[in-house]
Amino acid sequence: METRLVVGDAERLRALLEAARGPTLFLVVAGATETSTIPGISIAGPSPEATVLTPTLDVEYLVAGRPVMLDVVPVSPEGLPTPAVITRAVLSLLDSVGYAAVDAGCKFAPRVPHLALPPRRPGARIDEGPALPRGTAERLYRAAKLLGETIARGHSLVAIGETIPGGTTVAAAVLEALGHGGLGRVSSSSARNPHGLRRRVVEAALRRLRRGATVFEAVDEVGDPVHVSVAGLAAGAASVGARVLLAGGTQMAAVLAILRAAEPGALAAVGVATTPWIIRDESSDLPGLVSEIAPGVPLAYTEFSLASSRYPGLRAYEQGYVKEGVGAGGALFLAAARGFSQEEVLAAVEAEYERITRGQGDAADRG
Amino acid sequence: METRLVVGDAERLRALLEAARGPTLFLVVAGATETSTIPGISIAGPSPEATVLTPTLDVEYLVAGRPVMLDVVPVSPEGLPTPAVITRAVLSLLDSVGYAAVDAGCKFAPRVPHLALPPRRPGARIDEGPALPRGTAERLYRAAKLLGETIARGHSLVAIGETIPGGTTVAAAVLEALGHGGLGRVSSSSARNPHGLRRRVVEAALRRLRRGATVFEAVDEVGDPVHVSVAGLAAGAASVGARVLLAGGTQMAAVLAILRAAEPGALAAVGVATTPWIIRDESSDLPGLVSEIAPGVPLAYTEFSLASSRYPGLRAYEQGYVKEGVGAGGALFLAAARGFSQEEVLAAVEAEYERITRGQGDAADRG
Repeated sequence: METRLVVGDAERLRALLEAARGPTLFLVVAGATETSTIPGISIAGPSPEATVLTPTLDVEYLVAGRPVMLDVVPVSPEGLPTPAVITRAVLSLLDSVGYAAVDAGCKFAPRVPHLALPPRRPGARIDEGPALPRGTAERLYRAAKLLGETIARGHSLVAIGETIPGGTTVAAAVLEALGHGGLGRVSSSSARNPHGLRRRVVEAALRRLRRGATVFEAVDEVGDPVHVSVAGLAAGAASVGARVLLAGGTQMAAVLAILRAAEPGALAAVGVATTPWIIRDESSDLPGLVSEIAPGVPLAYTEFSLASSRYPGLRAYEQGYVKEGVGAGGALFLAAARGFSQEEVLAAVEAEYERITRGQGDAADRG
Repeated sequence: METRLVVGDAERLRALLEAARGPTLFLVVAGATETSTIPGISIAGPSPEATVLTPTLDVEYLVAGRPVMLDVVPVSPEGLPTPAVITRAVLSLLDSVGYAAVDAGCKFAPRVPHLALPPRRPGARIDEGPALPRGTAERLYRAAKLLGETIARGHSLVAIGETIPGGTTVAAAVLEALGHGGLGRVSSSSARNPHGLRRRVVEAALRRLRRGATVFEAVDEVGDPVHVSVAGLAAGAASVGARVLLAGGTQMAAVLAILRAAEPGALAAVGVATTPWIIRDESSDLPGLVSEIAPGVPLAYTEFSLASSRYPGLRAYEQGYVKEGVGAGGALFLAAARGFSQEEVLAAVEAEYERITRGQGDAADRG
């Protein structure tokens, strides 16, 4: 597989690819925002109310191979699997990459071993009131930075993914709050990007924002626990000499915006790795966001296709469903850096999809 | 500094020293047992009741440089510092060693980033009733093993320390329950080993033990959350190709006994690194325990002395106080493997002791 630079500095991308061949740690930051329960905002769950469980189930599946809190298959009724299937499949190939989930504020703590970031509190609906109690964003940033400083030592690369349904809507609010155009430019887990609904939610959130709010005040008001934690982790890992791969889609633009405001020096160590499905998505604009917020920071995607999969649930990624999450784009980046082929990764993803859908009837049927 | 083999296979010790020069992860497993609140069992706290807070404070200090839950100095009224001072000082020298605390069952979750091992439940007084609800020990072992399998990937060595006041008393009970002589052979944080009191506590615990109990049933009844978690972590790390350094004193004999019963194949990857103060302690017998429980497993200590320290609180280690904990012996092992001298380590320990006792009056006075 080839990794392609979309925007940013080619030399920095080469340094990230080189770092990905050395000691690498893969972290997935999980958290919830009640914003995802607004009908129409997120398809990352069987119902709007159930979307707040998805981060817990995602990381339980990533770590233990199955969701633990609920006995469910991490696949939608239409057979669409969580992108964690890609991440887990790739990690099964990359057996020298250590990995862990980080609970930055799940609604329910994962019932598998995980890194806990105090105060571990989910975000509220940003259209109704403050997302987080005052001071939480800064506290999370500092805790995440400390985690990066301690656990990233000795690693050449730390890849950081996310799982937070509703996170793209919150990302749009954070981007707007920090002076970057976010509305109309973030992606969605749905093939139809709900820009109109999202605009109403974000505008309701922004109306409460005090002029001159600091970055952490802005996140407390209109953010969520995940983006600020990813930013803190990145700053901490960079401070001990690791390169940092933000493994995600348009939510990582919010992370860059937080980092630019909080600790701009850390951006020199950072790149963004996403999936081809995000780059191809015409309803969002990650390249524009990255190049405006953090000029020079490389944005790359790895050429990988599910079009030839035997499974319709996997082929749906090529129709614009799901697109990214749980670090899938970063996992593909690592696989490419370490020389794995499209065929090897596809075989691993299909094998994992088969394993989790075994006995589930249609979901795993060849289409 | 030189690392000396006490018992076990010299070739395995050489392999551990070699592994300690590669990618190394340092974990400290923290948990509480109410057994430490029995007056006379533990001096690891300002009062018997307060000893259950010590693991939380120890790992907060290790990670953040100060206890967070309480604004205290991690030094006893007599100026005796927690052994975490040695560990933290050494980790400041070993800047490529990643580290993290693991909460296996603290009374209060650490208010710093940490690895959480569900179900995260402290142990009860073993003289009064079952230590853990039925099934907890096996659940912790499996969770810890999964953590080892995921986070240890890519590391040549994983060092695992512990902090659990009362842990030596519980270790004696676990050793006896698993058919090894533990009573009269475990050490104590006090210069006067409370063998008589400990015998009464352990015998009360053992009276409840069912004949033919499995290893996990035995830990549920007379154990604590820490030893079984260290064993699970060791098994998980070994299964992904890492060598494992059990960094502690006589409690690690209980870990070896659990591992021998649960997963004896993992013992081939394991060694024990302790302090010279444990080896010199005539009231305990770690060499005898290790050689009986796990023949061939190397037990080593690193020659390091606090006798020439300017501070009486540090010199007290040479009089048999504290002796070991929070991975201190393992930290010294890593420092020796990476070529640090007695002078460099002593200077780092004294600098750290000065930092934490600044403004504390006598504690930091030169003696």
